[in-house]
Amino acid sequence: MSPRRPERRSEESANAVIRAAMELCQEVGYRKLSIEGIAARAGVGKNTIYRWWPSKAAVLLDGLLSTWRVDASFPDTGDFAADIKAQMTAAARLLGDPDVLPHYRALIGEAQHDPELHQALWDRFIGHLAGAAVERIKAAQRAGQIRADADPVLVTELLYGAAYYRMLLTPRAVDAGHVSAVIDLALAGLAPSQG
Amino acid sequence: MSPRRPERRSEESANAVIRAAMELCQEVGYRKLSIEGIAARAGVGKNTIYRWWPSKAAVLLDGLLSTWRVDASFPDTGDFAADIKAQMTAAARLLGDPDVLPHYRALIGEAQHDPELHQALWDRFIGHLAGAAVERIKAAQRAGQIRADADPVLVTELLYGAAYYRMLLTPRAVDAGHVSAVIDLALAGLAPSQG
Repeated sequence: MSPRRPERRSEESANAVIRAAMELCQEVGYRKLSIEGIAARAGVGKNTIYRWWPSKAAVLLDGLLSTWRVDASFPDTGDFAADIKAQMTAAARLLGDPDVLPHYRALIGEAQHDPELHQALWDRFIGHLAGAAVERIKAAQRAGQIRADADPVLVTELLYGAAYYRMLLTPRAVDAGHVSAVIDLALAGLAPSQG
Repeated sequence: MSPRRPERRSEESANAVIRAAMELCQEVGYRKLSIEGIAARAGVGKNTIYRWWPSKAAVLLDGLLSTWRVDASFPDTGDFAADIKAQMTAAARLLGDPDVLPHYRALIGEAQHDPELHQALWDRFIGHLAGAAVERIKAAQRAGQIRADADPVLVTELLYGAAYYRMLLTPRAVDAGHVSAVIDLALAGLAPSQG
């Protein structure tokens, strides 16, 4: 066997760092997670980590992205309500996993005072999903299932906002029942029906 | 003049601590804010602070509550849409103030890995406002302005959720135009009108 190429060794080190960060975050919690601890567990130097990531949060973001393998493409069965329920329920199940939720909440929390992480979280995950949702909403508008005068971006804020508000700010948890109720209410509207 | 009573001196010290925390957070940012720094600026010992507050975040929460003086009672002019727009626009103006927003975002961020702070933030501020909103929504239901079968708690999540999602997770900012558009869309519903 030929010796492994340097790039290959780098990739293995990077994976070891990400794995160590995920494990340690689960064991000691986000607050006590440190670059020193990650380096020790991964068997690399601190400088190796800092060469690739600006912060422990950035390592975790890579870890979550690799764990989730979220498929940003929306189902399109032709039934908007069913499709968005399926997508949001799958996301809620994934994000509500006790092995994932604390990491994700910690990342969102950290992003509130780390503008670079805020941007990365948006560009690489939340905004990525929101962009796919906007495309699905536009298709629903063309199919006459969503009012044509609604701003698709505002529609994503209304649908996802209720779930994030509940997850981040209330003592309540998001589940399939909540997702379904939010979507039904948003579609029907709050005003009493005219009929 | 008689000597000041101990309780009075305690209250003055508490106010000095809160003021110092708010000033320092603005000057150095949430991350670099420390109990040591607050104590030095306020002219009290660290133990005095720890006697009253469990963390720097808890001091800031008191500071924000005293600064905002948010009136949780909703206007009730009989027009639900106008009243909720007035209330949410006032809150967005207050919370969007560059002197307040970074503190508030830092507190919400910290609450994601501090369960005690999460509960305090909900009990003393966010949940307090949400409770007042629920009462106003129930009155609107009695008046036939909001569909009677909508869960009032779900209505608050839909209305406030969109604003918090935008504020905490997107690169966009909340303003009066956004608040108004969200409420109009939530009232009308996403489905095309039948008429």
